Amino acid sequence: MKRIGVMTSGGDSSGMNAALRAVVRTALDHEVEVFGFLRGYSGVINKKYEVMDSKSVSGVIQRGGTILRSARCEEFKTDEGQERAVGNLRELGIDGVVVIGGDGSLRGANALSKKGIPVIGIPASIDNDIFGTDMSIGADSALNVIVDAVDMLKDTASSHDRAFIIEVMGRNCGYLAAMAAIACGAEVAIIPEITFDLDKIAERLYARYKEGRTNSIVLVAEGAASAYKIDEQLKGRIGYETRITVLGHLQRGGSPTVFDRILASRLGRNAVESLLQGESGKMVGQVRNRIVLTDLEEVLGTCKMVDLEMIELTDILGR
Amino acid sequence: MKRIGVMTSGGDSSGMNAALRAVVRTALDHEVEVFGFLRGYSGVINKKYEVMDSKSVSGVIQRGGTILRSARCEEFKTDEGQERAVGNLRELGIDGVVVIGGDGSLRGANALSKKGIPVIGIPASIDNDIFGTDMSIGADSALNVIVDAVDMLKDTASSHDRAFIIEVMGRNCGYLAAMAAIACGAEVAIIPEITFDLDKIAERLYARYKEGRTNSIVLVAEGAASAYKIDEQLKGRIGYETRITVLGHLQRGGSPTVFDRILASRLGRNAVESLLQGESGKMVGQVRNRIVLTDLEEVLGTCKMVDLEMIELTDILGR
Amino acid sequence: MKRIGVMTSGGDSSGMNAALRAVVRTALDHEVEVFGFLRGYSGVINKKYEVMDSKSVSGVIQRGGTILRSARCEEFKTDEGQERAVGNLRELGIDGVVVIGGDGSLRGANALSKKGIPVIGIPASIDNDIFGTDMSIGADSALNVIVDAVDMLKDTASSHDRAFIIEVMGRNCGYLAAMAAIACGAEVAIIPEITFDLDKIAERLYARYKEGRTNSIVLVAEGAASAYKIDEQLKGRIGYETRITVLGHLQRGGSPTVFDRILASRLGRNAVESLLQGESGKMVGQVRNRIVLTDLEEVLGTCKMVDLEMIELTDILGR
Amino acid sequence: MKRIGVMTSGGDSSGMNAALRAVVRTALDHEVEVFGFLRGYSGVINKKYEVMDSKSVSGVIQRGGTILRSARCEEFKTDEGQERAVGNLRELGIDGVVVIGGDGSLRGANALSKKGIPVIGIPASIDNDIFGTDMSIGADSALNVIVDAVDMLKDTASSHDRAFIIEVMGRNCGYLAAMAAIACGAEVAIIPEITFDLDKIAERLYARYKEGRTNSIVLVAEGAASAYKIDEQLKGRIGYETRITVLGHLQRGGSPTVFDRILASRLGRNAVESLLQGESGKMVGQVRNRIVLTDLEEVLGTCKMVDLEMIELTDILGR
Repeated sequence: MKRIGVMTSGGDSSGMNAALRAVVRTALDHEVEVFGFLRGYSGVINKKYEVMDSKSVSGVIQRGGTILRSARCEEFKTDEGQERAVGNLRELGIDGVVVIGGDGSLRGANALSKKGIPVIGIPASIDNDIFGTDMSIGADSALNVIVDAVDMLKDTASSHDRAFIIEVMGRNCGYLAAMAAIACGAEVAIIPEITFDLDKIAERLYARYKEGRTNSIVLVAEGAASAYKIDEQLKGRIGYETRITVLGHLQRGGSPTVFDRILASRLGRNAVESLLQGESGKMVGQVRNRIVLTDLEEVLGTCKMVDLEMIELTDILGR
Repeated sequence: MKRIGVMTSGGDSSGMNAALRAVVRTALDHEVEVFGFLRGYSGVINKKYEVMDSKSVSGVIQRGGTILRSARCEEFKTDEGQERAVGNLRELGIDGVVVIGGDGSLRGANALSKKGIPVIGIPASIDNDIFGTDMSIGADSALNVIVDAVDMLKDTASSHDRAFIIEVMGRNCGYLAAMAAIACGAEVAIIPEITFDLDKIAERLYARYKEGRTNSIVLVAEGAASAYKIDEQLKGRIGYETRITVLGHLQRGGSPTVFDRILASRLGRNAVESLLQGESGKMVGQVRNRIVLTDLEEVLGTCKMVDLEMIELTDILGR
Repeated sequence: MKRIGVMTSGGDSSGMNAALRAVVRTALDHEVEVFGFLRGYSGVINKKYEVMDSKSVSGVIQRGGTILRSARCEEFKTDEGQERAVGNLRELGIDGVVVIGGDGSLRGANALSKKGIPVIGIPASIDNDIFGTDMSIGADSALNVIVDAVDMLKDTASSHDRAFIIEVMGRNCGYLAAMAAIACGAEVAIIPEITFDLDKIAERLYARYKEGRTNSIVLVAEGAASAYKIDEQLKGRIGYETRITVLGHLQRGGSPTVFDRILASRLGRNAVESLLQGESGKMVGQVRNRIVLTDLEEVLGTCKMVDLEMIELTDILGR
Repeated sequence: MKRIGVMTSGGDSSGMNAALRAVVRTALDHEVEVFGFLRGYSGVINKKYEVMDSKSVSGVIQRGGTILRSARCEEFKTDEGQERAVGNLRELGIDGVVVIGGDGSLRGANALSKKGIPVIGIPASIDNDIFGTDMSIGADSALNVIVDAVDMLKDTASSHDRAFIIEVMGRNCGYLAAMAAIACGAEVAIIPEITFDLDKIAERLYARYKEGRTNSIVLVAEGAASAYKIDEQLKGRIGYETRITVLGHLQRGGSPTVFDRILASRLGRNAVESLLQGESGKMVGQVRNRIVLTDLEEVLGTCKMVDLEMIELTDILGR
């Protein structure tokens, strides 16, 4: 290979820049040129790119977001769009592509691969909902943002005898809510994977109130319910006031944690080396601390499960 | 004076504990006993208090919220409630009281003072809406929380070509929105003190878009409009997508900044010394770096203005 | 078992409180009483302890250091001291002990176990130098403190054309230096496990300088060399000025990261459940994301190796 | 005026970029061109500069350090160097200059002004040692870095019964040590402005120890003594162990606080407007919240005093 392309696609997550840096510098170390496509697949379709050198990724490892920018691209979901992308990649002499992104982005990567372009995917998603890797890039950073925020809210919760109902991201996956609940000592975590009974939750919080414990934290994954809906059901039934916080886009931002910087560096390096070794149609992930390749078909067709141990931990420790 | 009372009342703000520590230690330094009433005025009405020694405020200067807890107290708003509070204070041998809180709390302090209890108020309000002090305790900390959050959102805003419409606290006072706008380089600040024209704002953002500047930050004080209302008017008119974030209670929390810790330490010390010098019915504030006393009547009857210079700064610099 | 003891011992690390909380609440969940010994083994020898209830560990998950305090205890290193400790534990009706700490603390745990007291160890060490667990409690927090500090120093390094030589902890183990080097994009990592050649390092930095790259970060593990010694050898040879920073005790402090809070929660829970299942003389660790028990003899007799992949990553990416 | 120059000079401080942004955008708002000289006065002598537009200062308000870089320049201290600088400025059609920096930089600004170039200085120094302004740019940020670090060290100090002796910047000026001592609740502050008696300090700490207060924080300004010297005198005399931390260059870095961003924005704007109004040889400062101009001669000839109130506060509150 003489020239590869790289892009970030879908919702941004903290650590994408660290992955990009690793891709660029590993490729240069192997004397392979790197074209960085702007705004994901739309950059391929519209031939918007920058030639990357070592300096173009200097000082980016600590920055959130993505310097290549990201976007959704409706055109690329069509066969015509994909053909145009393949044509452009061939015209530009691109021998392989690294795609950094979440579920939708990896779906695009799979499509490109099927049309004959060698592609390796790197999982980046704050939801941590991608099969084939224990952690996707951005999840640890998002968790730390959430927990820092909850630590702040606890100052007010304990000063005022209040329950805070805090909505975090996670459409299909309760990972962020479940892990944040353990890490901030929340009393309740509500996640899409597990059915919940608000009457029982209200009873439990009221029982604690009767014992003199007059504040609490309830974490809700957006995919399970909205904080507003939970609030409607709990207020007036637990003995003290409730307040709502929706963390929203804050969770995507901020400087990546060490965990995400190192994960991104490992995955970025291995994505390029896998391409050079002739791999394609695969995602590089970290499973039980080891770097592994998984077929994109399997990645996209498998649902990732939250570890039941984590649910138990909140139950036992959040009392 | 041999014994004074102290309480925190109303919405909590970061730095209340630092003020409490200064009140306690200054009083002890003058060999005056300190009773800390729990949950504001309701602690006085229900005789809930702790006797404070030097150790009881060890390690609290860096903690957000208030270790004395806070609450609203409807009963204290009635004459009967106030009489009962006065009776309890006399019974407990309290020679004077320091009240740490915002507008409503200072109104209560004024009532107590009129009934013959020596009282000094300390302004604590993240909104910074209290006349008689350039800064109230918690405003600088809240501002830094806001600006840290906006810095994070800017990562996503610039990665995705988006406008973020961010709602911050401030019912009558645009201080937080105006200052945060300067500090994070926002393009627009919408505050209650100044009439705004959403058509012009949309035009201005669209004009920037045409010049290739495809992301922006709009800060809105809750007292001027809700972020949702602003979003309705802007979306579809500026050339790129909009997103909403309501920062909410996050703004109250977190460890106080150095500014708030020092302000609180100065005001706490001076509140006690003023009481000892026979002052009452006044609030201690910091005006142009100096500690000054202002009659509570004047404090409560005067509207604090946002400095026009700050509005101009956003206009000139946020381009 | 009806009653267990718990202590934190040796150098403090962030997350010890989270482990303690998990130990206490898991034990209470099994209706087992918990005595918390103060200042490690000296609390056992001097019978200084507190009976822990659920509230005694409320609000501690986010706090650095250890609420049980820690200390070195020379007396416990003698057979007499150990006998006295065993006698006290029997007298107090303690059926088992959980020891949270590093190498030296686990050595003490092993001694207690050999004398017939059921003991489970939990690895807590910012150096991450304990065999039998991929990560010990506090290492991820320490790394994040280091990397936040280096990110700050890079502001000055790049403003002034300077090399910063930064000394981090790690007596026998270059983990912190190696991982921090990847995570902050350092140019050089000097660790005890690998011989280093300062002439080559100087040449490499000077070659970069000739290409116009006029600032750099050199991370040194204290066990490999002092920053002062490295500075002596580099200054005057790389084309630009050098500056030294020794991070020191800062690395131990601060609120634990999410990773450390969850690791500590898992290990604390499993330590208690292992004791209840009749295990002793073992350490509970996390290996490839799973909880495993390892004999303390093996833990203490095995040297943990830094992963060579991490050394390569700095070489490839730090250019 | 049609074209002005701007530079950052001397030690970097957090907020320099915010000042630069305000200078550039205010000038552009008045349709004045801006040349940004690189590496302070050496950029003028060597004609190294960039033409600044609005985008060149996008996204810099939150970044520490200085994008124009900074340096000391020996040549500019000579009359020949200054003449050369003046010649270059005239050749480049520069009608006025804004210099952002500390004492030495303002001395250079005064020299340029005397040679007929209109110059306005902006005070930037973490030491806060410049007369003519209550706060110089970077001091509030440095203080917050110090206090965050001390908060971390307190975790370890209280876990281990230790005194931490912490050396902070401040060659002639104890501002950082004195203010940080109040803000982190330190027991002792040692500053160059006040003679100190280590015997008395040791006695006082030992007396506290006897009362059961077995940890403490001692803040030392580098201009008063080194932490190592203080440690030599205290260790073995206070009842518990001592540890040393030298914060060093960390204090310069990090994202500027809100206070510094707004101070820098105000000063940057007013520096340009003062130049346009024909002012020269002056520094723009913030005194009692108002923007004021002071002759550089007076700035450079006057020693700034630490407020005695701040010394008293540590004495009263740090018990």
